[in-house]
Amino acid sequence: MTDRRRAILTGAARVIARRGVRGLRVADLAAEAGVSTALVYYHFKDRPGILRHALAFIGDRADRYTGAGEDGHGTGGGTGERDGTGDGEAPRPSDPRRLLERTLLLEFQDLPEVRENSTAWGELRAHSVFDPELRDELASAGAAWVAEVAGHLAEVCPAAPDGAVTAAAERLTALLEGLSVRWLSGLLPLEHARGLLRESIAVEVGRLGL
Amino acid sequence: MTDRRRAILTGAARVIARRGVRGLRVADLAAEAGVSTALVYYHFKDRPGILRHALAFIGDRADRYTGAGEDGHGTGGGTGERDGTGDGEAPRPSDPRRLLERTLLLEFQDLPEVRENSTAWGELRAHSVFDPELRDELASAGAAWVAEVAGHLAEVCPAAPDGAVTAAAERLTALLEGLSVRWLSGLLPLEHARGLLRESIAVEVGRLGL
Repeated sequence: MTDRRRAILTGAARVIARRGVRGLRVADLAAEAGVSTALVYYHFKDRPGILRHALAFIGDRADRYTGAGEDGHGTGGGTGERDGTGDGEAPRPSDPRRLLERTLLLEFQDLPEVRENSTAWGELRAHSVFDPELRDELASAGAAWVAEVAGHLAEVCPAAPDGAVTAAAERLTALLEGLSVRWLSGLLPLEHARGLLRESIAVEVGRLGL
Repeated sequence: MTDRRRAILTGAARVIARRGVRGLRVADLAAEAGVSTALVYYHFKDRPGILRHALAFIGDRADRYTGAGEDGHGTGGGTGERDGTGDGEAPRPSDPRRLLERTLLLEFQDLPEVRENSTAWGELRAHSVFDPELRDELASAGAAWVAEVAGHLAEVCPAAPDGAVTAAAERLTALLEGLSVRWLSGLLPLEHARGLLRESIAVEVGRLGL
């Protein structure tokens, strides 16, 4: 990805997190990214193009700070975002159960980058109820995320049937999104959100059988 | 509630479900409700007042079509919305487990009223990330909903400790909201959403011990 494309998408995530999708004007985005509106259109064609690419960019950033995608799962966006920077976390655990927990729990971190990214993701997801143009992108990002979590679950519970593993991954990711909105709107403290999610992981793993 | 207040709040839910919170203009709302803008301001003071009352109204409507609040739990809004109309569902089951399932699963119904109500609720919830003025109202509506579900869970699992029951209710309601956004944006078929939720109820009840 060129520096300018990256600057525009970084700006888009910031503007969406601050003012919502409906508050994203291309002129403001260009100003935020320090480029001309013509350049924004050159790279992303139109507003729906900006939103679609912003969604993929935000998904890739989440992969980076949750340590996802390091083993060939991940969103598969192939946008070159996973460049090894930004993963200042503890080393990737080798125990599959800890890896599963880490991938999910690192979505809740009191860091400006994580808050901004989660706010923008939640806003794009909520906006997709009104905007069918976002659905294909969300569907593929969502499916990749479920596959990622299902991959970890299958390592934890190798004897569990595929269908049950996928259903558990769908529930854990949907729960995470529901908790995330409550956390970001100040209704649920960070540690409480993490505790609820950790317990759900235990419940689902117990159900699938170790 | 007077007919005009009700007409305004019905209109607010419809406009929010159609165009989002940011798309809610008081002039459009007045036109939708067939009243003057002055009357809207007379009843609800300002835009935040409209949103707060719309949120309570939408919560009460959900209570009605899920059969909640019939036993003294419920959102406790006391707005007189639960007038006995609109509950064209099967009679309220006496088995607590079926009652629990019904309360949660009836949030997923392919009826225009339910879709509109859930869309408006999800939009207000998503918007609260940007608008602190909604948080108190959302916090109390959310707490009442968790208490409602916890009450049913406690009936199903009378020996479970209160803390565990409340945590399970928090997870089930957060999961439901996460699934709801996916359903409403066309990413998750209705029956699949219900199946995932039904399984989570089984998982949580199993964990709490019958």
